[in-house]
Amino acid sequence: MRFLHTADWHLGRWFHGSSLLEDQAHVLDQFVELAARERVDAVVIAGDVYDRAVPPADAVSLLGDVLERLVVRHAIPVVLIAGNHDSAERIGFGGPIFERQGLHLRGTLSRLEAVTLQGRQGPVDFHPLPYVEPAFARALEGGESVTDHAQAMSHVLARIRSGFQPDRRHVLVAHAFVAGGSESESERPLSVGGSGGVPPSVFEGFDYVALGHLHRPQRAGSDRIRYAGSLLKYSFDEAAHDKSVSLVEFEFEADGNCRVTPHRLRPRRDVRVIEGRMADLLAGAEAFGPRTDYLSARITDDGPVLDAMARLREVYPQLMEIRFARQAATGPTVDGAGAGDHRRRTPADLFASFFRDMQGQDWTEAQRAAFEASTRELLEAPPNGVLF
Amino acid sequence: MRFLHTADWHLGRWFHGSSLLEDQAHVLDQFVELAARERVDAVVIAGDVYDRAVPPADAVSLLGDVLERLVVRHAIPVVLIAGNHDSAERIGFGGPIFERQGLHLRGTLSRLEAVTLQGRQGPVDFHPLPYVEPAFARALEGGESVTDHAQAMSHVLARIRSGFQPDRRHVLVAHAFVAGGSESESERPLSVGGSGGVPPSVFEGFDYVALGHLHRPQRAGSDRIRYAGSLLKYSFDEAAHDKSVSLVEFEFEADGNCRVTPHRLRPRRDVRVIEGRMADLLAGAEAFGPRTDYLSARITDDGPVLDAMARLREVYPQLMEIRFARQAATGPTVDGAGAGDHRRRTPADLFASFFRDMQGQDWTEAQRAAFEASTRELLEAPPNGVLF
Repeated sequence: MRFLHTADWHLGRWFHGSSLLEDQAHVLDQFVELAARERVDAVVIAGDVYDRAVPPADAVSLLGDVLERLVVRHAIPVVLIAGNHDSAERIGFGGPIFERQGLHLRGTLSRLEAVTLQGRQGPVDFHPLPYVEPAFARALEGGESVTDHAQAMSHVLARIRSGFQPDRRHVLVAHAFVAGGSESESERPLSVGGSGGVPPSVFEGFDYVALGHLHRPQRAGSDRIRYAGSLLKYSFDEAAHDKSVSLVEFEFEADGNCRVTPHRLRPRRDVRVIEGRMADLLAGAEAFGPRTDYLSARITDDGPVLDAMARLREVYPQLMEIRFARQAATGPTVDGAGAGDHRRRTPADLFASFFRDMQGQDWTEAQRAAFEASTRELLEAPPNGVLF
Repeated sequence: MRFLHTADWHLGRWFHGSSLLEDQAHVLDQFVELAARERVDAVVIAGDVYDRAVPPADAVSLLGDVLERLVVRHAIPVVLIAGNHDSAERIGFGGPIFERQGLHLRGTLSRLEAVTLQGRQGPVDFHPLPYVEPAFARALEGGESVTDHAQAMSHVLARIRSGFQPDRRHVLVAHAFVAGGSESESERPLSVGGSGGVPPSVFEGFDYVALGHLHRPQRAGSDRIRYAGSLLKYSFDEAAHDKSVSLVEFEFEADGNCRVTPHRLRPRRDVRVIEGRMADLLAGAEAFGPRTDYLSARITDDGPVLDAMARLREVYPQLMEIRFARQAATGPTVDGAGAGDHRRRTPADLFASFFRDMQGQDWTEAQRAAFEASTRELLEAPPNGVLF
C-alpha cells in the first residue's frame, strides 16, 4: 500500500486581497500528475479542503475537477474528510453515491465504518474521522462525560478500535490539533480559551495517522503520526516552510513501520519576505529572487520613507505588505505619557511618540519647531480657506 | 420507456416564516416510493431543485439523501438540471463521477451530450439543458446575435438537434418560461423588463419536453411540452392548484405520442384559504378543513375586528396571513387628498381614509368626534406623563 497524504487545501482562500484559486489549481495539477506517476493506491485529504463552509462557486468547480481526474481518469480512490473550515453537510453531499466510484467523502460523524482499500500486499483499512466538536462526541453512545477535544477524540477512537478487523493495517484520517505541534498564523484555532489539543497517545493502535489542521508539515509525537501541511503558504510566517505532500508506503520497512517521503509541489508564486534598503530594493531587484512572488518587504532605511508601497509595487507587482525593520525590532514605544489618556496629549507630544516609533530616536529641536509651525498654520487657517 | 417528470422542488424554501423542509421531506418520501413502485426507467428533475444558489445545509442533506435512495437503493437513473434559482457550479459538483452511477447532474452549459437511457423498447436520449442566461448562449459558437431567451433557446436547441441520433426518442429537460404559460406568485421572473418567454415552436423535433419554472402543472402549447409544476404550493395564489408529478410513458399510444399521467403527492400540510366571519372561524373550525394546514384567512366581518391573528392562531396554529374580505374586494381608497402629499393631511384626514379602506364606508360624525378627542388627549399629555 502506497498512498498520498495531503491536507488543508483551503480552496477559495484569499491572500492579502488576491484570490489564490489559480495558484491552487497550479499545484493541484502537479498533485494529480504525481498521484498518477507514482501509481498510488489511494489519496487521503485530511480536512479543510475548502477555506470556508460556503466556498465560492469556482472553488467548488476546482475540487470537482480534481476529484474527477483522480477518481475517474486515474481510477485512484480518494478518502476526504471535513475539517473545521468545511461544512460537514455540504462536504458529505452524495457520499453514498460517490463511494461506489471510490470517492469516500465523510462530512459528519454519522458513519464510522472503515474504507477498505486494496494495497499491493493485501487490504488496508482507512478510518475517515471528520472534524468534530466535542458536543458531537458527547451525543454518541457512552460519550456523556466528554468535555474537550482530547476526550472527544479518545472516545471516538475507542469506538473505532473496538471494530478493528484483526490482521489489517489501520490508517486514521483526522483533523485535530495534536498538543505540542508547531502552529502558523493561517490556522483557525479549534478552541477559544483552551488549547483544543489532543495528546499523541490517543492514536495508539493505528499504523499511520494522516492529520490535517497544522499548516507546517511535521511529525506529531511519533513518526507514524504526521501532518502533511497545507497545500500552499497561506501567511508570511510560513515563508520558511517546505510545503509538500507525503507519500506513505508500508511495504518497504522490515520493522513493519511505514516510510514517509515528502514531495514538494512548485507554487505558481512563492510567498517570501525580502529585506533591504529602499534604494537596493528598487534598483537591485535581481538580488531578491523572482519579482512576481507574493512578497512582504522589510525596509531597513533609518530615515523617513515616503510612499514605499506604491514605489516598490512598480518593481514587485505582488508586494502584499511592508514592514520597517527598525519598527519591527523595537515595537511601538509606550512611554509614561503614552500609557495614559491620549486625549490629554498635545499634537506635538503624540507626534513625538510616533516619530520615535518610526525612527528609533527622538526628533531634534529643529524638527519639533518645523512640526509646530506646520500645525499652527493648519489650525489657524480660515474655515473657508483652501486647507478646508 | 416510462419516467417521472418533476421540477421546482425549491428545497430549503421558507413560507411566511416557517421552514418547509419537513414538508418537502414528507412528499419526497412518497415520491421515492412512487418511483420504486412504478418501476420507472428514469427520474427527471427540471430545475430549481434548491430555492437559492447557496441552500441551507439541511436542504443539501435532504437532496443527497433522496438522490441516494433513487440511484443507489432503487437503481433508478436521475437526470437533474439547474434552474434559475440554483447555482450552476454547485449543482454540477462531481458530475462526471456521479454519471457513472446513473446520476446525471448538469449545472452549466459546458456539455451538451445526451444521456442515453434504456427503456423497455430501446434506448431514449435525454437532453439535459440547464437554465442559461442569454449571455451564455451568446458565447457559444454562432451565438453572437442572441439577445433574448427565445433566441438563446432556439440557438442551443439547434445545436442539440444537429447531433440527434436518428431512430431514437428524444426528451428535452429544460427550465424556461414558455410564452402563454400560467404564472404563480412564487416564481422568480427570468427577465426584468421583458417577458423572458420562449415560443413553444422552438421545441420542434422532441418527443417530450420536460419543463421546469412554472409552478402550476400545465401543458405549454402542445401535449408533449409540459410543466410538472412545483413539489408543493409555495404561495397562497397556488391554493387551488393540483400539485403532482408526471408519469410519462412512450409505449402505449398507437400514434407514437406519449401518455402523461399526473400522480398527486399528499402534503404534510395543505396550503389553503379559508373565509368566514370571525365568530364562525373561531367557533366552527370543523367546517373549514384540517386546522393545522397552512392557512390564509379571509375575514368577512363588517365591523372592526381586534387582534384577529392572535385569536385565530389559537384555533389554527399555522395561520400565516389574514385578509379582510371587504378590503380585498374594494382595494385601498385613493381619494383626492390621498393622492397628494400625505404630510399635509391632518391625523383625522389620514385616519378617515384608513377607516374607509378597512370598513368600506365613511365614519360617522360620532366616530370622528371620538377620534379627535382621543388624539387631542394624546398630543396634549405632559412629556413626563405615563403616555410617554
